[in-house]
Order: sequence, then C-alpha cells, then structure tokens
Amino acid sequence: MTDQMEKIVSLCKRRGFVYPNSEIYGGFSGFWDYGHYGNELLDNIKKLWWRRFVSDRDEIYGIRTSIISSPKVLEASGHVSNFGNEIFKTEVGTGEEATISHLRPETAQGIFANFKNVIDSHHPELPFGIAQVGKSFRNEISPRDFIFRAREFEQMELEYFIKEKDWEKYFEIWRTIMASFAVELGVQAHEFEVPAEDRAHYSKRTIDFQFDYPFGRGELWGLAYRTDFDLKNHGLDYFDDESGERFAPHVIEPSLGVDRTALAVLLSAYTEDELGGEKRVYLKLPKNIAPVRAAVFPLLKNKPELVSKARELFLNLKLQISNLEFDDNGNIGKRYRRQDEIGTPQTITVDFQTLEDDTVTVRDRDTGEQERVSISDLVSKIKG
Amino acid sequence: MTDQMEKIVSLCKRRGFVYPNSEIYGGFSGFWDYGHYGNELLDNIKKLWWRRFVSDRDEIYGIRTSIISSPKVLEASGHVSNFGNEIFKTEVGTGEEATISHLRPETAQGIFANFKNVIDSHHPELPFGIAQVGKSFRNEISPRDFIFRAREFEQMELEYFIKEKDWEKYFEIWRTIMASFAVELGVQAHEFEVPAEDRAHYSKRTIDFQFDYPFGRGELWGLAYRTDFDLKNHGLDYFDDESGERFAPHVIEPSLGVDRTALAVLLSAYTEDELGGEKRVYLKLPKNIAPVRAAVFPLLKNKPELVSKARELFLNLKLQISNLEFDDNGNIGKRYRRQDEIGTPQTITVDFQTLEDDTVTVRDRDTGEQERVSISDLVSKIKG
Repeated sequence: MTDQMEKIVSLCKRRGFVYPNSEIYGGFSGFWDYGHYGNELLDNIKKLWWRRFVSDRDEIYGIRTSIISSPKVLEASGHVSNFGNEIFKTEVGTGEEATISHLRPETAQGIFANFKNVIDSHHPELPFGIAQVGKSFRNEISPRDFIFRAREFEQMELEYFIKEKDWEKYFEIWRTIMASFAVELGVQAHEFEVPAEDRAHYSKRTIDFQFDYPFGRGELWGLAYRTDFDLKNHGLDYFDDESGERFAPHVIEPSLGVDRTALAVLLSAYTEDELGGEKRVYLKLPKNIAPVRAAVFPLLKNKPELVSKARELFLNLKLQISNLEFDDNGNIGKRYRRQDEIGTPQTITVDFQTLEDDTVTVRDRDTGEQERVSISDLVSKIKG
Repeated sequence: MTDQMEKIVSLCKRRGFVYPNSEIYGGFSGFWDYGHYGNELLDNIKKLWWRRFVSDRDEIYGIRTSIISSPKVLEASGHVSNFGNEIFKTEVGTGEEATISHLRPETAQGIFANFKNVIDSHHPELPFGIAQVGKSFRNEISPRDFIFRAREFEQMELEYFIKEKDWEKYFEIWRTIMASFAVELGVQAHEFEVPAEDRAHYSKRTIDFQFDYPFGRGELWGLAYRTDFDLKNHGLDYFDDESGERFAPHVIEPSLGVDRTALAVLLSAYTEDELGGEKRVYLKLPKNIAPVRAAVFPLLKNKPELVSKARELFLNLKLQISNLEFDDNGNIGKRYRRQDEIGTPQTITVDFQTLEDDTVTVRDRDTGEQERVSISDLVSKIKG
C-alpha cells in the first residue's frame, strides 16, 4: 500500500470511519465494517445522491429490491452463465424444495425485473427512471485497495428509460449531472471514453468517471448506454400512448459505487498542513457530507458553569442541527485535533465571555481562524 | 389470507408500496420488493427510529457492518450450531481458499464483533450503545403473511452496554422509548412479558411488543436483557475507569423489524369510510412518515394558466419540502382517491381564484375538509 493509503486506512480505523471486518477473529478479506463516522458519511453521500438523482426531479421512481431473488432473473440477464465464479451462491428453502440462488452482483437487474410493476403503479411517460440504493456482492478473486475492491459493497444506480432516438441527448444530460455531483463532493473526476473493444457487448457507449487513487487512476463511476438489451432479455416492453406503438425502451444507466465514492471523498479531503507552527491532519470535507456538522466545547472541563452553559447551547442547537457533537474530553487543543481529523467544518467554544454576553468562539476547520459570534446567529452561521 | 390482509396486499401492489419479488418469473417465496412509496415509507420509519434511538441521544454510536463476515463470528455466537438450517450458507473465495460463510441472521453479532473498535475510537463511558440498521436473512421453512415472515428482512437494532446492577433501570428506560415510538407511528402495541421457559437461554427478561395483525396477535419488536452472554462468547471486556475494574458489560437490546413495523403501520393506517356519499379507502399515516408529504394539483389539466401556476408553486415548495408530488393526471376526484390511498396528508389545488389572489385550496386527507390558504402560509401549514 502507498503511504497516503496507509494514512487513510489508519485514520479511518482510529477515528471510527472503517474497521476491518471480523478483526477480533483475524479478519476476513474483502469485507469491511463502517464505524460511527463512516456510517454518517455514507448516509450523507447517499442522501445527496438521492436528492440530485431522484427527489430534485419529477420523473424518477425509487425502489428497493431484495438481494436474493429467483435464479431466473440472473439467468435471463446472462449473469449466471457469464460470471459464474464471481457471484455468491446460496440455497433457498430446504431439502427437495431447495433452489440454488445468488446474491445479486448489481442492483440493476432488480430494477428491470420490476419495470412492469412500476408502469402499472405509476403509468409514467417516457422518459422516466427507476433508482435504487443497495448492497451488491461479488466474489472477487483478489479483493484489494481498502474499500475500493470489496466483496460486499453498495451501489447507487439509476436506469433511465428513453426512446432510442433520444439516447445521445439523455446520455449527455446524465453525464453533466454526474460531473456536477463529483464537484459537489469535492472529488476531481476524469472522464474516460471506454473504447468499443472494452465495452460490455450490449453497450453502445460507456464513459467511466475515474479518480486518481494513490494506487493509480481507477474507476469511480460508470455511465452506460445499455440499449434495449436488458428489457428484451426479460421480455419486457412499453406501450407508448403518443405513437400508439409497443416497444422496449432503451436505457441510459448512471451507476455509482457508494464505497468507492466514500474512498475518493476521503482521499480528496485528506490534508496535511501546518497551523500555528504545528503539523496537523484534517479532512476538508464538504459541509453537507461531513459526519459532524459542528461540535460544541466548554473551554475548560473542570468549570461547571462553562460545562452546563455549553451543554445547554448544545441541546438547543441539536433541535435544529441533528449531527452535532458535544465534547469536553481532554484539553481544547486535543479536541480541535480530533474534530479536524473527522472533518468537522466548525467548532463552537463556550468560554467565560459567553457567560457575560452570549457570544461564542467559532473556529473554522480549514483556516483555523476564530471569530466571535452571537448565539442567536449560530444556526445560520453553521448552516450557511 | 384474511380479507383485510388481501386488501392491504392488493393496495400495496397497485399503488407501488410492495411487489412480489421476481413476479415476472412466477415469484419467489419469502422475498419482496418495495416500490416507490414503500421505499419512501421504509426510509421515513428508519429515519425516525434513528432520530429517537441514536441522534436525539448523546451516548449512542451508529455502525454498519457487513452482511457476510468470518464464519468465526457466528460460530462464537452459537448461531451455526443452534440454527444450522435457518441460516443461508455461501462460499467466499474460490477453490482451495474457499471459506464457508453465512448471511447474518441478525444485525446484533456485527455490533458485538466491533465492540472493541468502537471503544478504541470513541472511549465511551458506561452506559453507551451501538446501533445499526441493515438487512438480515433467515431461511424460513414457511415464509408467510406478506412481509411479516420473509426470508430477507431489515432490522433496526441497538445494543446498550451497562453495568449489571443497572439492568432493571435501563430495561425500563428502553421499554418506555419503544412504547412511545409505537405511539408516534400510530401503532397500538401490546406488551407481552415472555415467560422464563420461552426466553432465549441467555435472556433474564424479555418483553415482546405485539400487534394485532389480521392473522392474529404476533410479534412486532423485542426488548431483551441479554446479560453478558454475547460479549463473553466473543471474549470481550471493558476497562471501567471509575471502579478500576475490567469486566464484560451487560446488554439491553431493543430489536425492531423494519418490514414488520411497516406492515403494522400500513394496517393501522388503512381506513374505509364514506365521504360525500361515496365509499373511499385511505391510509391515515402520521405526517412525518407518509411517503408523500403533500401533492400539488392544477384544478383542470387542460387550462395552461392553471397548470403553469401549479407547476411554479410545486417547484418553489419543493425547495423546502422534498417529498412533494405534482399530479395533473385524470380529473380531480381521481387524484384525491389516489392521494388518499397512498396516505398523503394534504393536497393543494391551484384554481382560477389562485390566479387572482395567490390563495389555494388545501384539502385534509382524514376529514376531506377544504380550506383557503394563502401561498405564503403554505410551508408552515404543511409542516406544522
């Protein structure tokens, strides 16, 4: 592992972002557990994706399909014959009634298998999309590079159904949305046009969004024009009121890995600098995905009037900002270091002046600069 | 199936709450897919649980462990020897390096296996808790009663670590929190003291929260005092600064099934009544978990000035209320029926008067009553 990767892995473990799975039993290759801050980070990334790819729009339907399904789904999609060794097998039911099934290797097929259900419930007109976030499993021969190539991972996937003639237009629209999502996450993504010989056989165009990981440039997300391959495999079609025709819509698929996104976000945010003559490490995470939005400290732990004032302020703010943290452990320098390392954008310190004039010190993570802010202005200061 | 259950299953399919898994291939017993509204409902239930059991408190750490882990975890917990046929088996890795592992039958063991990691990252004092939401799998011999007994399901689980002497106090605290959570969901839960002979061997006290399903009273949630059984199985302990002693903390475990909760919520909300001389069906869902918070209609679909005004209002409101829906399909009576059936608490109609004085009609789902509201008061009216 490279130096930077080692630093990230170590910070993630120490601070509660990512733990090796089953570590007390010697570990289990290809599986990872997320700690308190990792879980919050993942949730924030997924919520932001859901907003940008689903709720901000009007023509996208969310769905949540099961990880195990009838073997016929993955037989029809070609997964069973093409990726036999890479999919996890299990037995459903017992004895003579047992059926061999598989853990899904992607969230896409569950979407296609419910295409008719969504149409029957919502009667959407083309173009429309079906989105889901969920776990997928691949029995990777060599899981590696931390959470980059794991055997259990999570996807944020959208299948966007269109008329064939419109594919270039919608490919471009989703390309742009993915590019701005990367910007919003603070991640520099490089678009890579996948050449015909490297594309899946059903894809007429694929763009990979790549990222410069410490181990080299690698895939972050994919955008594929899947044609009508999948719906035809499942024998599905759509009746178009406008033309009076029945046909299988074509598909544009933006597909994003949650864990890889988190890794790229962490790597992009990781910064070493010098502040006040001392070396420090901090995560320059965008405000809206940072696990902790702000932390409240009493200046001194052993002054009950400061602690109770800080506690009161914390409880009041928490009603409006849910991911807030209270910390009175160790001295204030140690608390700053800890909040910097988990990427908290702002810390609020209650000191003796607070008791007199209801102002607090707000410290900015990136610059280390402190300013005096009135308690009544705090919410807009933190959210703004 | 009972009459009421059939009605719920049918509404869930028709409106996009729950679909039978792999239905286009003849279905797959014990597995279900959630549609657009079901997915939103589940998300809202999980968010509310997270708020009440995790974020509203200060001593609970969230976590997200993998579904597959080292077989040693479930061997140590006793699952492999005790529930051999009920857990799904799979092979991780290939050839000689393959390891038999299992899909987790509960989210609890992943929490216990990370007990040391959480302590090392956060140095919490007792009492503290570790919470997670995630999928679990049980190879039920007879999956039945819709999403009540499925083979793939989701859990919201908390392990709360305490000193042995405090167990009765914290058991009582979590009992109360679970009871108020039921009230908040609009679900009438019956507490059932599980007699000693029916408890798991490690449990010194268990309360089931039961619900009157159409097929009879059955389990909804469980609250168990698990003693120090699990941590001892995993060989884990804790150093207590206060007493200077090292010991395995005891555990209080509130365990809630997401799918069963959703089923109880849907059954409790399902109402048939008569409105304006016509029979109707509606879901009396609590505002904060309804899949759609409010819907915006133009009174008539074929009047462009109404449609564009309604659309403008919709887009403005959406900036402040994310789960909003726009509907101009069919006549207004049909739209009311649809929104009633998915449980939308309020519908907003833009009519000719709106064009003159910026007021709209707000209709209440439960009473069918309509009132005239100024557009500037809408957000507080809907959120309030």
